Amino acid sequence: MTVTAVAPLRIGVIGVGRIGRMHAGLIAHQVPGAALGAVFDAHEPLARDVAAELGVPAVGAVHEIFDSELDAVAICSSSDTHVELMVAAAQAGKAVFCEKPVSLDLAELDRALGAVQDAGGGAGVPFQIGFNRRFDPAHASVREAVASGAVGEPHMVRISSRDPAPPPLEYVKSSGGLFLDMMIHDFDMARYVTGTEVVEVFARGAVRVDPLFAEAGDIDTALVTLVHEDGCLTAIDNSRRAAYGYDQRVEVFGSEGMAASENPCAHTGSVITAAGVKRPPNPYFFLERYLPSYVREWEAFVDAVKRGEDPPVSTADARAPLVIGLAAGRSLREGRPVRVDEVKSA
Amino acid sequence: MTVTAVAPLRIGVIGVGRIGRMHAGLIAHQVPGAALGAVFDAHEPLARDVAAELGVPAVGAVHEIFDSELDAVAICSSSDTHVELMVAAAQAGKAVFCEKPVSLDLAELDRALGAVQDAGGGAGVPFQIGFNRRFDPAHASVREAVASGAVGEPHMVRISSRDPAPPPLEYVKSSGGLFLDMMIHDFDMARYVTGTEVVEVFARGAVRVDPLFAEAGDIDTALVTLVHEDGCLTAIDNSRRAAYGYDQRVEVFGSEGMAASENPCAHTGSVITAAGVKRPPNPYFFLERYLPSYVREWEAFVDAVKRGEDPPVSTADARAPLVIGLAAGRSLREGRPVRVDEVKSA
Amino acid sequence: MTVTAVAPLRIGVIGVGRIGRMHAGLIAHQVPGAALGAVFDAHEPLARDVAAELGVPAVGAVHEIFDSELDAVAICSSSDTHVELMVAAAQAGKAVFCEKPVSLDLAELDRALGAVQDAGGGAGVPFQIGFNRRFDPAHASVREAVASGAVGEPHMVRISSRDPAPPPLEYVKSSGGLFLDMMIHDFDMARYVTGTEVVEVFARGAVRVDPLFAEAGDIDTALVTLVHEDGCLTAIDNSRRAAYGYDQRVEVFGSEGMAASENPCAHTGSVITAAGVKRPPNPYFFLERYLPSYVREWEAFVDAVKRGEDPPVSTADARAPLVIGLAAGRSLREGRPVRVDEVKSA
Amino acid sequence: MTVTAVAPLRIGVIGVGRIGRMHAGLIAHQVPGAALGAVFDAHEPLARDVAAELGVPAVGAVHEIFDSELDAVAICSSSDTHVELMVAAAQAGKAVFCEKPVSLDLAELDRALGAVQDAGGGAGVPFQIGFNRRFDPAHASVREAVASGAVGEPHMVRISSRDPAPPPLEYVKSSGGLFLDMMIHDFDMARYVTGTEVVEVFARGAVRVDPLFAEAGDIDTALVTLVHEDGCLTAIDNSRRAAYGYDQRVEVFGSEGMAASENPCAHTGSVITAAGVKRPPNPYFFLERYLPSYVREWEAFVDAVKRGEDPPVSTADARAPLVIGLAAGRSLREGRPVRVDEVKSA
Repeated sequence: MTVTAVAPLRIGVIGVGRIGRMHAGLIAHQVPGAALGAVFDAHEPLARDVAAELGVPAVGAVHEIFDSELDAVAICSSSDTHVELMVAAAQAGKAVFCEKPVSLDLAELDRALGAVQDAGGGAGVPFQIGFNRRFDPAHASVREAVASGAVGEPHMVRISSRDPAPPPLEYVKSSGGLFLDMMIHDFDMARYVTGTEVVEVFARGAVRVDPLFAEAGDIDTALVTLVHEDGCLTAIDNSRRAAYGYDQRVEVFGSEGMAASENPCAHTGSVITAAGVKRPPNPYFFLERYLPSYVREWEAFVDAVKRGEDPPVSTADARAPLVIGLAAGRSLREGRPVRVDEVKSA
Repeated sequence: MTVTAVAPLRIGVIGVGRIGRMHAGLIAHQVPGAALGAVFDAHEPLARDVAAELGVPAVGAVHEIFDSELDAVAICSSSDTHVELMVAAAQAGKAVFCEKPVSLDLAELDRALGAVQDAGGGAGVPFQIGFNRRFDPAHASVREAVASGAVGEPHMVRISSRDPAPPPLEYVKSSGGLFLDMMIHDFDMARYVTGTEVVEVFARGAVRVDPLFAEAGDIDTALVTLVHEDGCLTAIDNSRRAAYGYDQRVEVFGSEGMAASENPCAHTGSVITAAGVKRPPNPYFFLERYLPSYVREWEAFVDAVKRGEDPPVSTADARAPLVIGLAAGRSLREGRPVRVDEVKSA
Repeated sequence: MTVTAVAPLRIGVIGVGRIGRMHAGLIAHQVPGAALGAVFDAHEPLARDVAAELGVPAVGAVHEIFDSELDAVAICSSSDTHVELMVAAAQAGKAVFCEKPVSLDLAELDRALGAVQDAGGGAGVPFQIGFNRRFDPAHASVREAVASGAVGEPHMVRISSRDPAPPPLEYVKSSGGLFLDMMIHDFDMARYVTGTEVVEVFARGAVRVDPLFAEAGDIDTALVTLVHEDGCLTAIDNSRRAAYGYDQRVEVFGSEGMAASENPCAHTGSVITAAGVKRPPNPYFFLERYLPSYVREWEAFVDAVKRGEDPPVSTADARAPLVIGLAAGRSLREGRPVRVDEVKSA
Repeated sequence: MTVTAVAPLRIGVIGVGRIGRMHAGLIAHQVPGAALGAVFDAHEPLARDVAAELGVPAVGAVHEIFDSELDAVAICSSSDTHVELMVAAAQAGKAVFCEKPVSLDLAELDRALGAVQDAGGGAGVPFQIGFNRRFDPAHASVREAVASGAVGEPHMVRISSRDPAPPPLEYVKSSGGLFLDMMIHDFDMARYVTGTEVVEVFARGAVRVDPLFAEAGDIDTALVTLVHEDGCLTAIDNSRRAAYGYDQRVEVFGSEGMAASENPCAHTGSVITAAGVKRPPNPYFFLERYLPSYVREWEAFVDAVKRGEDPPVSTADARAPLVIGLAAGRSLREGRPVRVDEVKSA
């Protein structure tokens, strides 16, 4: 039967704060083959608002999502609820999309991934983790240049990720720290663009942006060296504050050349006078910068689920960056390179 | 009373083909302070589709739009209906947004603009013509550089507008020709970025892209010189087919410097090998390339109407580019520079 | 005999002011297969200075150059001496390199070119005119993209040439005016990059930079339309003063794409802050900007003479831009497009 | 007396192989206020050739340089001769310019620097080490952006240095290895652009380009983390082979923004077709890429010596990069971060 390929995939969204609301809107309006089925939020008035705006029901209890005839759920609630919701969704046989991180705790993450894999009598349910940057056209072109052989074997990777402004202190305190909250995207990117696993991490970090990070036991500036299984070397730098705006660049240097993604400009206008050339800065933050990647992320998920194939960013991709991030934390604390296989699930 | 400033401006959209559907969607979802009130299309099933998608009524006769309590109408139907609809809308006291061109006939255009200006016992109704490119952030930055004095007095302007592929022959035949269908945007741009009127036109054109244009009595390639009232010289080139995609660039050279808008890239990825640097071409056509400009265009209209101010691209801006375009046509036919004041309303 | 191919080509330089001194230095130090043989300048102390610096004799009378055993002469003296020197050099059987313009008078130019062609009993002497920009690697890459078919048939060309600052009034008065002194390079460029002849010219110009140009009966700002024999349309703009530095750009738009040369930057550094991206302006003037082109120009001349082939920029290339320039002047005066074949040698 | 400021600084060049010949040529022709006095090379015919070309004497024994009345010497011979020549030059009271490295051995380097500092009864002689990249206009603009405060406090630095092709195996064997032969320029750059000292080094390296490097006990690919005294973090990557040509980029990220130097293009031409935008690769190797920096390096030396001031890249700058390089080697061997103060002169 090919009926499922024709009918829209009905998706329920759990958690409609900033990012969940965006996901719900994209599913409702911009993802071909998908339909928004219902929304839930622990804060009921918010759920009702979003539901009214998008013309779908708001359910009053999260189990109504799992008990429904919806095909899939998008877990966009606060991070500490992800594991339980993934387990429940998997047991209900739903295809699962989960925003990153599944968990900051490796054992908990393994429990959630296990539920996804064991569901349906061992057949598992489709699962995708929200590493949306893989779907950014520029970063994807870097991956494609590696995968096609255009740049040869990867020898070195440079990744810079710098936010325009630090998050609130409260957020920082519960974020898991720079490596698990922010650089985790870059750990994923390093694996994605090279197509190889990371075996060793060396991290150096500092508090340079705001002393509040020290209060939270965190850092705001970091430079990390990754060694990949094939000897490729990756440098990742992160800052919680780039004065000139959101900065996201990836570069793979290989035996035959280099592929790179640059920052988009706010616009293409420039002014040139005796003082030089002036262009606008990077004004975007992630929702604007990466909007096309979120749409393509959903297209990939919907397409895979409908075809009965594995979604393209699945359980191994949810686990590896957390392990690298935990190794980075240990490297920073112990002042030495840490092998990824030193990190074990408790 | 400031109530009008708070309540959304209710807008009815007449004509929901490609561009009208886009306008309706933007009004419904993306323009703060605006609300889509109803849609009409001569092709009723289309109107019903769009209405259902956007959750608004489809009216069965266009006069229902004018008789309604809607505040404004967006005229997006085929060009030959614009004049009558503008007259009717103005007489009904609606604020009027009209896609370009109002008319290819100067007398008819003057009749429509007259209706707009005479409505309401001579007070007129708010009117805006759809020269959306003025609201493109890059082109607007060029205008801003001139208006602020950053580039000094404008001495020379270069504008290139090249489409990725020619329209169908049927479209070409009723389009009014390259000057009135395509370059009219650039005539507007020349006035916009300099802030001055055009007094003379010299046009050269050719059929280089497709012999079908000759069959339609049209050209597909043109280079036009404009002389502005202050002596500024503008070169505009148009082609109906750029192999590399949509090409839209504006440059103002002035006594203190130069401001320019470049084409956006499809994405910011590049690959560099022994063969050189490779970047993606320009894949956009106008709906994608100029989407942000359409949103900002609506914001400007809604804002002006609510404040009781004149919309920023109004009757004079609707008229001048048509006159320049008619002069360009005469220049091409007669092989000589034509003064704009040689073109008279019949 | 292939001896000539091995022995250096001995060149005498006539006129060692700014540009002649540069040519002499290049010949002495940077052009493989060439040797500086002697220098002459009407201002003898200057000749002695340059000669001492470069380790060659300074001759006291120009005929000593022609009477010598030198293989070639470089005519770099003031423009009004070029015709007589070319005639004398040709009659002496020397290969002739002449800085542009040969003459501002078409009959005189024809006399000089005739002498070159008739010399040696009708075999002629090798001749090259100093349109050095053809040898600029970036402009040459534009030509190459056309010649190789990479951009298809040329449909439109855009050329901007803008100087960083106007020359002294005295220079302007004897320069022949903007079309013959400055835009003549661009007339050559239009023929070079397209590979086709120009058949019609329409010119508009103005005094915008400095009223002194009006005093000299000249203009300082101009926009010219060229029609080529195959229908290609070229827009050339010139200004005597670009506040941001020397500006030299060429762009060919064809049926399969576009080739363009941009301005080099002073250096590749940039600073990006909350205020935007800042890059340095274009600081070069022609001697610096085009230095590599002068070297390559000499290499081409030396190579052609040694091989017994025609130099690559020869008599037809010396004549055509002057004719186009004269047509441009007439177009400006008469306010109409002028066909190139309206310009006759007196 | 200001006589010294007017008379040219007479410089003798010792060693006129590839780089010494270039230095000699620059001194002879392009450095204002400098004069080439004599040249010496252990290979006498080479010295005679260069001397003839540049119009200066070739001395037959190196002591003749020291015994002469020359003001300064440029030591450009093979690296293993630098220490003895520096000692001799200093004892002869000459101002000393020495190509890098002074020595690969810290004790030897200290002996040479000691001789320079102790000469003239303790007053010392002027000394400059050949870290020419500091004088590259683009890299210098990065330093200037830091020094002026435009980018605030430096938080992170990225430096990529990649050669177009590996040197011959024989060269590699005696080069001191990648850290002392190639990355030493980048250690200098990290200190230069930030203005701070490096306190810790962590290095990872690999043989990816050619197994011959393994035979030589060396690596060809490396990624190094530096920690500066103020907490700034620097990532340096090196490769012995970039398929696309010479790649030299520096970027400083600070509290107020970012300054960066990009690679110059071979030329500014581009071709855009349906296949995308194509630009030329980076064809330069260091002599071409950095030619202007060599000229400016000499200007700085000559200016400092004439003014009686310390040259801008002096003894501390000759020593620190070697120490960092030795620490990098130890880090690579021992698999741990190494503090710079662990490296002691034997």
